[in-house]
Amino acid sequence: MAQFGIIGHKGRMGRAIIDAIEEAGHEFCVGVDLGGDPAPLLGQCDVVVDFSSPEALEQNLRSAKLAGIPILIGTTGLEEKHFVLLSAASETIPVLQTGNTSLGVTLLAHLVREASAKLGAEWDIEILEMHHRMKVDAPSGTAKLLGEAAADARGIDLPDNMESGRHGQTGERREGAIGFATLRGGTVAGEHSVIFAGKEERLTLSHTAEDRSIFARGAVRGAEWLIGKAPGRYSMNDVLGLG
Amino acid sequence: MAQFGIIGHKGRMGRAIIDAIEEAGHEFCVGVDLGGDPAPLLGQCDVVVDFSSPEALEQNLRSAKLAGIPILIGTTGLEEKHFVLLSAASETIPVLQTGNTSLGVTLLAHLVREASAKLGAEWDIEILEMHHRMKVDAPSGTAKLLGEAAADARGIDLPDNMESGRHGQTGERREGAIGFATLRGGTVAGEHSVIFAGKEERLTLSHTAEDRSIFARGAVRGAEWLIGKAPGRYSMNDVLGLG
Amino acid sequence: MAQFGIIGHKGRMGRAIIDAIEEAGHEFCVGVDLGGDPAPLLGQCDVVVDFSSPEALEQNLRSAKLAGIPILIGTTGLEEKHFVLLSAASETIPVLQTGNTSLGVTLLAHLVREASAKLGAEWDIEILEMHHRMKVDAPSGTAKLLGEAAADARGIDLPDNMESGRHGQTGERREGAIGFATLRGGTVAGEHSVIFAGKEERLTLSHTAEDRSIFARGAVRGAEWLIGKAPGRYSMNDVLGLG
Amino acid sequence: MAQFGIIGHKGRMGRAIIDAIEEAGHEFCVGVDLGGDPAPLLGQCDVVVDFSSPEALEQNLRSAKLAGIPILIGTTGLEEKHFVLLSAASETIPVLQTGNTSLGVTLLAHLVREASAKLGAEWDIEILEMHHRMKVDAPSGTAKLLGEAAADARGIDLPDNMESGRHGQTGERREGAIGFATLRGGTVAGEHSVIFAGKEERLTLSHTAEDRSIFARGAVRGAEWLIGKAPGRYSMNDVLGLG
Repeated sequence: MAQFGIIGHKGRMGRAIIDAIEEAGHEFCVGVDLGGDPAPLLGQCDVVVDFSSPEALEQNLRSAKLAGIPILIGTTGLEEKHFVLLSAASETIPVLQTGNTSLGVTLLAHLVREASAKLGAEWDIEILEMHHRMKVDAPSGTAKLLGEAAADARGIDLPDNMESGRHGQTGERREGAIGFATLRGGTVAGEHSVIFAGKEERLTLSHTAEDRSIFARGAVRGAEWLIGKAPGRYSMNDVLGLG
Repeated sequence: MAQFGIIGHKGRMGRAIIDAIEEAGHEFCVGVDLGGDPAPLLGQCDVVVDFSSPEALEQNLRSAKLAGIPILIGTTGLEEKHFVLLSAASETIPVLQTGNTSLGVTLLAHLVREASAKLGAEWDIEILEMHHRMKVDAPSGTAKLLGEAAADARGIDLPDNMESGRHGQTGERREGAIGFATLRGGTVAGEHSVIFAGKEERLTLSHTAEDRSIFARGAVRGAEWLIGKAPGRYSMNDVLGLG
Repeated sequence: MAQFGIIGHKGRMGRAIIDAIEEAGHEFCVGVDLGGDPAPLLGQCDVVVDFSSPEALEQNLRSAKLAGIPILIGTTGLEEKHFVLLSAASETIPVLQTGNTSLGVTLLAHLVREASAKLGAEWDIEILEMHHRMKVDAPSGTAKLLGEAAADARGIDLPDNMESGRHGQTGERREGAIGFATLRGGTVAGEHSVIFAGKEERLTLSHTAEDRSIFARGAVRGAEWLIGKAPGRYSMNDVLGLG
Repeated sequence: MAQFGIIGHKGRMGRAIIDAIEEAGHEFCVGVDLGGDPAPLLGQCDVVVDFSSPEALEQNLRSAKLAGIPILIGTTGLEEKHFVLLSAASETIPVLQTGNTSLGVTLLAHLVREASAKLGAEWDIEILEMHHRMKVDAPSGTAKLLGEAAADARGIDLPDNMESGRHGQTGERREGAIGFATLRGGTVAGEHSVIFAGKEERLTLSHTAEDRSIFARGAVRGAEWLIGKAPGRYSMNDVLGLG
C-alpha cells in the first residue's frame, strides 16, 4: 500500500484518480488545489500525480524534488519549455509524462507501430474513431497518436500523408495515405480502430473504452510502477515493458 | 426455368448477371450489345434486364413493350425525363427500376427507416461506409440512400442535416444531424453501418457485401419475381414484400 | 412531472430507477421495501414500478388497483399463475409487464422479427452476445429473446432449431438452424448481434449497452408512457409504437 | 521473375497458387500430380511449393534436394515423423513449413502473443471466429493457433485453459481461461477476433479474409522469399521479419 498525493484533486480527473487509488488498495494522502503550494504537503507521500495545468508544472516539479518522490504528469497542453523542465527534474527524481494514461491505448499504439512496420505500403492504413456528441474536435488526439505511430513506423510524416474528412469527389485513395474517419454520437466514451487493408484481407486493431475511469486507473498503475525507480524520464510504454 | 434477355451483356455487370442467371437455374437467351436493337431478339424471352445506359432507355422500353415482357432497369444516372418514360411504359408492362439491386441493402434501408421513425431525435444517427481504394467519391451512393431513408422517416431533409467529412474544430455535434464517415482501402467490396447512438446504448444496423456478385444475384431475383406481374411500376421493396 | 412509486427501491435496480426518475425530471414519491405493504403509500403516486419479486406480485397488483394507478412490472421469474394475475388486474388498470426494459433491445427484437420474415431460409441466422465475466449462464436471456423473435417470424420453434455451444466435430451447419455464440470477459455491460448470413452478403443488427442504467431509463420511459392509458395489458413494444 | 514448381497443382489450392504465381509476375513451370515423381521435373524450377499430402512428403523433399531448390510445405496433417524429415532436409536446402500461409494471420498471431504477454491475467482473453456454413469443425484451426499464441505468451497450456462451446449454467468465467466462440453461416471466408477484456476497456485484434485466395498469395510470397536463402528451417514469421 502506497501513499498518493494528487495535484488538481478537485477536478473531474482528480476525483476519478482518488477512486482509482482506493480501488487499487492504496491511500490518498494529500490533495493540492490549483494555486496551492504542494511543497509542504508531499513529505508523507510515496508518489505524486499531477493533472493540474501547464502553468503549475514548474512549481509541481520543484515540490516533488523537495520531497524526493516520483511524479506522474498527465497534464495536456505542454510546450517545449515544459519538456525542458521535465528533463531537468528527471535528473533527480523519476518523471513519467504522458498524454494518454490508458494501458490499452498504450499497447494499441505499440501494436500499430509493429504492424505498420511489418506490412508493406500496399496495405492501406485507415483510422476510425467514435466519441460522444459533445466532443468538439476531429479526429481525436488518440486517433492522431495512433496515426503518428503508424506513420513513424513507415518512416513517413503524418501531416503530409493524412487523409481526413473525405467528402465529395475525392478521387482514388492516395498511395501511402493514412485515412481518418470520425463518428460522433450519444455517450460513447471512446472507440478507436486502426485498419490495415490489403489485397482480400484486413487486419483491424481496436480499443474500446467503456468508461472514462480507465484513464484514472492507468494513471494510478503508472504512478505505482514509478515508486522506487531510478531518476529518469519514463513513459507509459515503460510501465507495460514495451521496447 | 425462365428465359432471360440482357441489354448490355458484355459489360462487367452484364457478365455477372449471366453467371447469376445460370446459378439460379434459368437460361440466358439473348444479349444485346450497346447500339444494337433489342426488339427483334426479345421475342423468345420471359423477362429482360437492362444495365446499359440512360441513352438507350427509350429504345429498350419500346422493345420490351413490343415483346410484351417485363423489364428490370439497373442503369444509373437516370434523369427526370427517363422516369417519365418508365411511367409511360409501366402502363403496358411491369417495370422495376432501382439504383441498388442488393436484397440485403434493400432490407437494410427499410429497417433504417423503421428504426429512425421509432427512436426519437435524441438518438444520433451516424452512417459509416468502407470501400476499396479505387472508389472516387464519398460517401457512397448506398450510404446516401440509407441517410435518405433515415431522414425521410424523421420528416427532415438530408442535405440540410448532413454532417460529412468532419475534420478540425467541428464544435459539438449538431442536434438532428445525420453524420457520415468514409473509409477507403484494400479491396473491400462494400460495408455500410447505420448507428443510432442514444444515452448509454447504441443500435447498429450493418450490411457487408463479400463480393460484388450480390448485385447481379439481386437483379436476377428481381427479374424472376417480375415475370407474370401486372403492368405497373415496381421497386426492390416489392420483391421483398416490404410495405 | 409525475410522481413515481417504486416497489423494491433498495435493490440495485431500484436505486438505478430513482436516478433515472430524477434524470427524466420526475419525482420519486414513495419506496416500498420487500415485505412492506405498498397499499397505504401509493395514493399520492401517478404510477408505480415493481422490480421486487414474483412472491410479492399479487399484493403489488392489489395495491395499484386500490390506488387506481398504472403499474410497470420488470420482475423476472414469473410463471403461468402470475400472468393470470396480470391479466385480471389489467381489466381495472394499465399493466405493462416486460423481461427487458431497454428501448434499444425492444426495437432490435422488432427489427430482427422483420428481417427474419423477409429473408428466406437460405439466410443463416446467428446470434452473438458478450457479457462481463461474472455472468453465470449462456446464452443470455436477451439473446434467447432475439432468437425467439427470429424463430417466430419464420414459423419455427426455437428449442428445436437452436445450435448453441458449438465445439468439436460439429458437421456442416444444419439448414434452418439458429446459432448462438457466447463471449464472456471483463466488465462488458451487454452486447448482442443478430447476423443474417446469405450468399456473399450479410446483414447484422446489433445492440450495445454501455451501462446497465439503460434498463432503469427504459423502465421510467415505459412507466411515463403508461400514465393516462386505458386499462389493459401493454408491452415495451407499445411504448415504441411497434405493431 | 522466378520459376515455380507445384506439387498437387490440380487441387483447389494448387490452382489458386497458379493464379497467384501469375499475379505476382512469376512463372508456373511444372506441376506434379499426386502419385507422380517430381524429381525429373524440378530441375528448371527456382522453388517448389507442396500442397499435396503427408504421404508424399518424403519423396517431395528428396526431389527438392536433388534439384537443389527451396521447398515451401503447406500440407496439413503432418505428424512427428514428418517433422523429423523436414529437419533432415533443412540441412541441405531451405525448408518453410506452415499450417497457415496468410500474412495477415501470421502477423495477427504475433501481435496476440505480444498483447498477451504484456497484459496481466486480469485481462480476459476471448477468441471469436466466423466461417461459412460448410465448415465441419469448431473452433477453426486458425482460432486454435491464435489461442496457442496467447497461452504460450502467458506460460500456460491451452488445452487446460480452453473454454469453448459455452451453453447453459456455465458459472462465472474461470480466471485465466481462454474462451472460444464459433459462428457459422453463409459464405464467410474466415474472420477471427482476439479480444482482451479488462476493467472498463477492451483491446480487439481481428483478421478478415475476404477471399480464400489470400492463402495462395501468401504461399507465393513465402516461396519467393525462400529463394536464395541458406539451408535451414523457416516459418511464415521469418517472411515477415518477426522475431
